[in-house]
Amino acid sequence: MAEAARRPGGALNPFFAPRAVAVVGAGREPEKVGRVIFDNLLAAFGGPIYPVNPKAAEIEGHRCFPSIADIPGPVDLIVVAVPGRQVAGVIEDAGRRGVKAAIVISAGFKETGVEGARLEDELAKTAESYGMRLLGPNCLGLMDTSTGLNVSFAGALPRAGGIAFMSQSGALCTAILDWAKGAEVGFSKFVSLGNKADISEIDLLPVLADDPRTTVITTYLEGIKDGRGFMAAAAYASARKPVIVLKAGTTNAGARAVSSHTGTLAGSENVYNAAFRQSGVIRANTVEDIFDFAVGFSSQPLPKGRRLAIVTNAGGPGIMAADAVERQGMWLADFQPATVETLRAGLPAEANVYNPVDVLGDALADRYDRAIAAVLKDPHVDSAIVLLTPQAMTEIVQTAKELIKQARQAKAKPVFTCFMGQAEVGKGIKVLRQAGIPNFSFPERAVAIVRTMVDYTENRTGPTEEIPRFPVDRSRVEAAINESGKHRNLIDAQALGVVEAYGIKVPRTELAHTAREALDIAAELKYPVVLKAVAPELLHKSDIGAIAAGIANDFELRRAYREILSNVDRFMPDAELWGVTVQEMVRGGSEVILGMNDDPQFGPLLMFGLGGIYVEVLKDVSFRLAPITPAEAKEMVEEIRSYPLLQGVRGGARADIEAIVDALLRLSQLVVDWPQIQELDINPLLVLPAGQGAVAADVRIMMSEG
Amino acid sequence: MAEAARRPGGALNPFFAPRAVAVVGAGREPEKVGRVIFDNLLAAFGGPIYPVNPKAAEIEGHRCFPSIADIPGPVDLIVVAVPGRQVAGVIEDAGRRGVKAAIVISAGFKETGVEGARLEDELAKTAESYGMRLLGPNCLGLMDTSTGLNVSFAGALPRAGGIAFMSQSGALCTAILDWAKGAEVGFSKFVSLGNKADISEIDLLPVLADDPRTTVITTYLEGIKDGRGFMAAAAYASARKPVIVLKAGTTNAGARAVSSHTGTLAGSENVYNAAFRQSGVIRANTVEDIFDFAVGFSSQPLPKGRRLAIVTNAGGPGIMAADAVERQGMWLADFQPATVETLRAGLPAEANVYNPVDVLGDALADRYDRAIAAVLKDPHVDSAIVLLTPQAMTEIVQTAKELIKQARQAKAKPVFTCFMGQAEVGKGIKVLRQAGIPNFSFPERAVAIVRTMVDYTENRTGPTEEIPRFPVDRSRVEAAINESGKHRNLIDAQALGVVEAYGIKVPRTELAHTAREALDIAAELKYPVVLKAVAPELLHKSDIGAIAAGIANDFELRRAYREILSNVDRFMPDAELWGVTVQEMVRGGSEVILGMNDDPQFGPLLMFGLGGIYVEVLKDVSFRLAPITPAEAKEMVEEIRSYPLLQGVRGGARADIEAIVDALLRLSQLVVDWPQIQELDINPLLVLPAGQGAVAADVRIMMSEG
Repeated sequence: MAEAARRPGGALNPFFAPRAVAVVGAGREPEKVGRVIFDNLLAAFGGPIYPVNPKAAEIEGHRCFPSIADIPGPVDLIVVAVPGRQVAGVIEDAGRRGVKAAIVISAGFKETGVEGARLEDELAKTAESYGMRLLGPNCLGLMDTSTGLNVSFAGALPRAGGIAFMSQSGALCTAILDWAKGAEVGFSKFVSLGNKADISEIDLLPVLADDPRTTVITTYLEGIKDGRGFMAAAAYASARKPVIVLKAGTTNAGARAVSSHTGTLAGSENVYNAAFRQSGVIRANTVEDIFDFAVGFSSQPLPKGRRLAIVTNAGGPGIMAADAVERQGMWLADFQPATVETLRAGLPAEANVYNPVDVLGDALADRYDRAIAAVLKDPHVDSAIVLLTPQAMTEIVQTAKELIKQARQAKAKPVFTCFMGQAEVGKGIKVLRQAGIPNFSFPERAVAIVRTMVDYTENRTGPTEEIPRFPVDRSRVEAAINESGKHRNLIDAQALGVVEAYGIKVPRTELAHTAREALDIAAELKYPVVLKAVAPELLHKSDIGAIAAGIANDFELRRAYREILSNVDRFMPDAELWGVTVQEMVRGGSEVILGMNDDPQFGPLLMFGLGGIYVEVLKDVSFRLAPITPAEAKEMVEEIRSYPLLQGVRGGARADIEAIVDALLRLSQLVVDWPQIQELDINPLLVLPAGQGAVAADVRIMMSEG
Repeated sequence: MAEAARRPGGALNPFFAPRAVAVVGAGREPEKVGRVIFDNLLAAFGGPIYPVNPKAAEIEGHRCFPSIADIPGPVDLIVVAVPGRQVAGVIEDAGRRGVKAAIVISAGFKETGVEGARLEDELAKTAESYGMRLLGPNCLGLMDTSTGLNVSFAGALPRAGGIAFMSQSGALCTAILDWAKGAEVGFSKFVSLGNKADISEIDLLPVLADDPRTTVITTYLEGIKDGRGFMAAAAYASARKPVIVLKAGTTNAGARAVSSHTGTLAGSENVYNAAFRQSGVIRANTVEDIFDFAVGFSSQPLPKGRRLAIVTNAGGPGIMAADAVERQGMWLADFQPATVETLRAGLPAEANVYNPVDVLGDALADRYDRAIAAVLKDPHVDSAIVLLTPQAMTEIVQTAKELIKQARQAKAKPVFTCFMGQAEVGKGIKVLRQAGIPNFSFPERAVAIVRTMVDYTENRTGPTEEIPRFPVDRSRVEAAINESGKHRNLIDAQALGVVEAYGIKVPRTELAHTAREALDIAAELKYPVVLKAVAPELLHKSDIGAIAAGIANDFELRRAYREILSNVDRFMPDAELWGVTVQEMVRGGSEVILGMNDDPQFGPLLMFGLGGIYVEVLKDVSFRLAPITPAEAKEMVEEIRSYPLLQGVRGGARADIEAIVDALLRLSQLVVDWPQIQELDINPLLVLPAGQGAVAADVRIMMSEG
């Protein structure tokens, strides 16, 4: 576990539980930022609050201090709302005074350009020199409903609840607070991250993970600077409670040229998907997802499995829910015979007693009650969704009350409702909400929430595996890297040698400098062989005829040798020709590609796909960030669409899938051990039939600059 | 255009504009169905209303009649709410009286089982014998806000508006009415279809299409009996206004065994997708889609193109909207220089004057006003989404008002809003709603609506094409079909002959009965050739060695002939061997599959895909219902993921795509001309390089029973 997780947020305590707070920039004009924060603090915080303003003597009966130095008592936290250029001075004063926590509301920093970025750097350095932690600048502050702390410019404290929210967008904070107010949803902590000059999601994730009042962590992020730090913090947190992240925008991976297949296909979306998946993060695609997932996770227990029961008073919505169950990979629970009997006894003859249970349009609350009780008691049911349409006799509020009673008795099984409509059903929805049962307007949405919760459960309860370490020959890799020189490329025998040093099989390969040498080598390797010109400039050998495969005898070898030399001479006269390799020819097998691209934020991203058109045209590839576990390597192979081809279709043999998994794990170890490798393609890895292994037929390695 | 469209709903006039209505089953108990309908009618309908009930003398001061025969004046429409078993008698009475329209609310028909289905058939026949049209049974009735007609058991009339809704689920009607009441959304007509014994969506689509008060048609369907009738009616309607359909459940295509590739891959989802697409229907996947699409289409003009402008007071939501624009295939409008200048002059220096326009968090209404005016004036902008987060100084209601003013001036450009939040922004949303500007809670949702509207515009304004008719040899097909006999299969030369009769190229093929004949034929066709045993039972020739390809000379032919005969004798001794075909061997070319499967509801469904693993493993295929236009045939080829392989990748030649399109059009004509063909596979069609055509190398045709 990374640094972020080992440092469980003790340093951030003053932010959430300060003994005393100073508001620098609090003034007498009631609309100004500093004053709004001061008023928000006053509204609920119990400790001393010191306004700091050289131009005022007192504010609302509180004595005003000209500077932080003048405050008599201890100050744990300062909030700064003065013009951007004055902030550095305030932080300096606070540092001298021993303040360990600062929230900088002021704007005028990185978001304004180069000069602002310089100011921000200065600020961060000053704070660091005093051991002070800093939230912001350019943020709205934070709230903690458990201590009544509202050090923010974002509005009034929301009601208390289990949802923690942090956001890189201050505006989204205000929108979510307004939504929460309308929807009567409660929060534990609310943090506006601003420019993240110091404190970021990496610091806060472990704090929220260890906060007993927080049951679900939700986050809006635009950029993640330290990808690996994020993954460690997110893994720590998501092992403890659900972490939901909405990631907007694309990374600025920049215009670095890529020359490998892996580099071309590894877009930032793939990197984030891999990072979130591997650290257990639930990805929200929309703001609506954040809301719905947060409400679902914070109000209901986790379902133990995919088996869902549906109770409805109308066929149509029942069908829609069943469609959604199928589409989203959930299962319609198959009731036990006893449950079916109970339902039959308790419902009219025309009712459907199988899943979805239809209590019919004239159902009163008692009929719903009996049906819900029966399905929740069934051990084959993991969760339930209750649908209601407001028909002529429907007892909306009474049904809500019966449902609450049953859901409480079921305890470990989550119950969601979908009371469809707005005007009439609204009264029932309000009753449900007050009892912590979330209502979703549409059956499809309710099913999506349950599915997300099951995914989280399964992900968390899956086996945890060690990342294997194979014995390898590091010195051989080191030598090859040292040799790579100014071209920053390792090709042919060199590159093959690197992967071989990590235990990936390669064909026997020798470098010849004359036709005579080539003949001797071929005699030793045995025909057929492959000849390739070797020059660091030579990346696409087949384009200029610098490669010849399937050479069957001495005569063909002599001719091929001559042709290759003549082609190189003609098409690339300036190439630094090192010689011609003679390589054992591997026959048969499926062509797959294994690759790695070093992501600037997240480090080595591994790719897997079938060779040729599957990668180039269909882009049928999978990604994971190294290092990977054996289970992750297996997933990489199994999740491509063309996986059945490896299993053997149309009479073909099953490929040696275990050998691919082994090669992926070894590649993972290689790229983690040698961070100077920027891109790597094993293309193709020839995979022989099951039990016969796999051979890297061609390898290219690009090293990073400097 | 089909029958439904030629009969523009005149017969349904009495349902929506009756001069007088009789309510059969109206009683004195206020909670009962018949009485509720009577009261609903009374509430707004201007014409005479006659309660019919032998047990009452008068209801609410209206004279009660013992039977329909006793009513003095003319009656255009009856509503029936008596027990199911009495309905037939009522319809009989009404028929004799000359009533031409009946709404049967009563349940107890098809939905209850076999006996109910019999009763329903009887009902339909009785009505038909009197030339009476019938809505229901087992429905909630209908509403028409333009005439104040509420002949329903579904609740009070909604407000008037442009949305028409019809539903096979009565419960969904009640839910939608409740939603409409809460959301203040207006409807034109509202129809509960019930069991569709007579009137169905096919009758109503043209009526709603021609209704000047309806601007968008929304429908919930569970089953479509007459697929082609539906397509004709939907095409008629969607050429006039948007038609949105939520189709729930899967069809009961039944357990008919399929033996072709096309049959295996053609699931009901593919059939419905093809049918909806080809008839211009917008498919809703969720109830939420219905709501949102209906509100979008009914309140705003259609966008002319994909270029969307975003105006926001917060960066984060702007990024989310831009992400959604990219993900959903919309375009961020590229402003004209003049627009950028206007924005620069009207906004603070820190504002972003490019798309998405960021008016900054402290924007008051005037700044929004200037920005919205500028982007809506830009000819490069087709539509706009205005985002607002409730920040400290945001003038929510005033901004809504300025926005309404600008949207009205823009006229032809749709404007959508996304005021994010609930409590505070609610006031602004209400102002917008009253002015017909729909607000969506999340940027992603707003973008999805605009995209759906653009898709509809483009689909509607696309060129309309004729379905080509090629000159063909029908007598040859007829002869082949007559020959097929009890096996119902056409294979080899017979099947090749059928597609050749429709102008699809086939290899030269002749049937031999002796080795000598085979040698003579081979001499004429020229080597290499292919030999195949021909027997109607023989479907998978390669499995038993009944085919030999690449035969290069007389010696190989003799040996292959012997082997084939011996294999058939050994593995299928009972096969009725007709002989051995000798076939010209086509070399080179890409293998594609063309197929057809006759859907019980929708008729001949065409399939296209690349041969081999692309169809079998990757299921990379496209579908359309025959007959198809040249543009549709082209789309079928272009929409598969592996299409780049036909265009020529990795140095390969471009395949003759025009020849595939031609073959698809000819296949389309064939299967439309000969409805007795149930399944057909051309597998493979060998497609040669561009300009060289395509040849059907193997064809199998299965005829329908009887």
